[in-house]
Amino acid sequence: MPETIPNNSVGLVKAETAHFDEPLQLNCGKTIPRYKLIYETYGTLNKTGDNAILICHALSSDHHAAGYHSMQDRKPGWWETCIGPGKPIDTNRFFVVCSNNLGGCKGSTGPMSINPETGNPYGPDFPIVTVKDWVITQAKLADHLGIDCWAAVIGGSLGGMQALQWAIDLPDRLRHCVVIAAAPKLSAQNIAFNEIARQAIMSDPNFYHGHYYNFNAVPRQGLMLARMLGHVTYLSDDAMRSKFGRDLREGKLNFNFDVEFQVESYLRYQGRSFVDRFDANTYLLMTKALDYFDPAADFGDDLSRALEHVKAKFFIASFTSDWRFSPERSYEIVQALLNVKKDVSYAKIKADQGHDAFLLPIPDYLDALNAYMHRIDKDVSS
Amino acid sequence: MPETIPNNSVGLVKAETAHFDEPLQLNCGKTIPRYKLIYETYGTLNKTGDNAILICHALSSDHHAAGYHSMQDRKPGWWETCIGPGKPIDTNRFFVVCSNNLGGCKGSTGPMSINPETGNPYGPDFPIVTVKDWVITQAKLADHLGIDCWAAVIGGSLGGMQALQWAIDLPDRLRHCVVIAAAPKLSAQNIAFNEIARQAIMSDPNFYHGHYYNFNAVPRQGLMLARMLGHVTYLSDDAMRSKFGRDLREGKLNFNFDVEFQVESYLRYQGRSFVDRFDANTYLLMTKALDYFDPAADFGDDLSRALEHVKAKFFIASFTSDWRFSPERSYEIVQALLNVKKDVSYAKIKADQGHDAFLLPIPDYLDALNAYMHRIDKDVSS
Repeated sequence: MPETIPNNSVGLVKAETAHFDEPLQLNCGKTIPRYKLIYETYGTLNKTGDNAILICHALSSDHHAAGYHSMQDRKPGWWETCIGPGKPIDTNRFFVVCSNNLGGCKGSTGPMSINPETGNPYGPDFPIVTVKDWVITQAKLADHLGIDCWAAVIGGSLGGMQALQWAIDLPDRLRHCVVIAAAPKLSAQNIAFNEIARQAIMSDPNFYHGHYYNFNAVPRQGLMLARMLGHVTYLSDDAMRSKFGRDLREGKLNFNFDVEFQVESYLRYQGRSFVDRFDANTYLLMTKALDYFDPAADFGDDLSRALEHVKAKFFIASFTSDWRFSPERSYEIVQALLNVKKDVSYAKIKADQGHDAFLLPIPDYLDALNAYMHRIDKDVSS
Repeated sequence: MPETIPNNSVGLVKAETAHFDEPLQLNCGKTIPRYKLIYETYGTLNKTGDNAILICHALSSDHHAAGYHSMQDRKPGWWETCIGPGKPIDTNRFFVVCSNNLGGCKGSTGPMSINPETGNPYGPDFPIVTVKDWVITQAKLADHLGIDCWAAVIGGSLGGMQALQWAIDLPDRLRHCVVIAAAPKLSAQNIAFNEIARQAIMSDPNFYHGHYYNFNAVPRQGLMLARMLGHVTYLSDDAMRSKFGRDLREGKLNFNFDVEFQVESYLRYQGRSFVDRFDANTYLLMTKALDYFDPAADFGDDLSRALEHVKAKFFIASFTSDWRFSPERSYEIVQALLNVKKDVSYAKIKADQGHDAFLLPIPDYLDALNAYMHRIDKDVSS
């Protein structure tokens, strides 16, 4: 816990909830009668409402992007590195909004919420949600907050995909789009890892076909395996080598199936702690949203055509050691934007940390983001 | 099944079993009182006994490397591509031996065997076996077959590691060492994938702490997940892209958790069919043998020192798209051999198929292996 909160933090923050009582037709064809989104804001919306920034979160993340919920918090929000007074996403200049995605497990309507039609938690009956659905719900949140047009929509990984979808689906409602460590769609390998994670969860005997809430059970083992697997794909081989190498936990081989190597201990810890903070049904939904993301699909598989009508200016960033969504994948977006003569800046950041780099305080990365954010700043009224 | 067996196959083959009734002290410190090895041979041992080749199998493979067990077999042995009359490992010239590793599940003593001390299957009480143990047992098999010195010890992946260990531990008993798609030791990432596979198996409620044989149960889901995960690491991202892309199994999205993409269907099939042919306790043992393999560890982590006393000549091959054991890892072995002035040939084969390439009929690969095998041929008496 922080004894005192650092000056460059947004400090103590409190989440708010917006309720939307009209039915929402989802991309999958199903409708939910009403829903709520939990969100946090940092900084102040200016009079003209043109300094608002939407932060989109990644797979296993949430609306708590910066600051602390209490003085007892061990950790700040997930993007404390980038959001705060004087930081690249400067809360002295910008009004920053981050909401938990629909289908989430941190306060927005999702599988753990009560299905008004049954009086029980949705569980596995919560409809499949897609990135397009999130754009629609976030636009409703923008309406609720009085924001016509975001100064920027920003995200990393799955959040970057949301930012890209925003630019395509609602071109008049954002001026800049920042897409970090993302890809225009998942590869077969990406889908394969997601499928193994889902199989791990769904084959856990405590999953009860997704109705585990009713059985006072949690598919702990399955969710733990899913997280362990995810974690390996977030780190580069080099990052794991420099972090763990082949170090033995007890300094010698034990010749049994207990933990031998530090990396095993680390992964088990990551898996176990994730189970305590995340819901398995939400994890399933988020991986599906990733699999389905493919904005070019509606345009004859031509990403350039998908981007032809975007109005936002783009900043795309990738990390050299990211093998989940490699620089080549990010560059496909850059190339598609160039093909249709859009304004795009691109930074390939040399970093050993793998996909996780987008969350880390890497100077070249923060500098590149900071520079771009000052460019955005220029077209914000004061 | 083959209607007729091709001319360049070794044809119908039959496994044999060698029994070793003296106790074997294992690397882990434990002893097994006796054991057997199942093996196949192809070709004929010449009078001087200098044309024998040992083939070492990989993680989930066995002694059935070439030919067919019956005219009803759907598939030949796992290395039919390379072993046979006129093939790179030419059974017209060489006497080829392949044995199932100790700890295996295809006929050599392993977890499914009866522990003579209890009268029940060893199950989880089968001791941890290492690559060094396999070298010792294979040397006993060589004695049994009257082979003082192999013309070559050859293997891919974990089999390549065995070949390397042979050259280090018993330098006088092989003249050539062929190490394909291997590494001098596992990286933290490699260990991490193995650990997730083990956790999947061990957390399956049908695992019963490894005693599932006694419960008439099989940890199917866990072993299936382990295999799915392994399979993703055997294929390159490119290979998966060209094989499956984002093709949908039913041509449209279904918005549910059934199979959507071809790659999911393929992985589930691979996982399910593996369960019918492999034992979970053996899978655990084989992954541990991989994790523990580290011949440099006994030499102050200096691979060159480990290789200082080898007498074999080496052929090392790697595949450009192999991210499980990348060319860089193979080249560490080459460099270590060069450091101590050993005779080493190296081929980095351009191939898109990932780690699996070592099993596939890739012309450049077969040509390189064929050329090297002719070099071996020169010092075989006729």
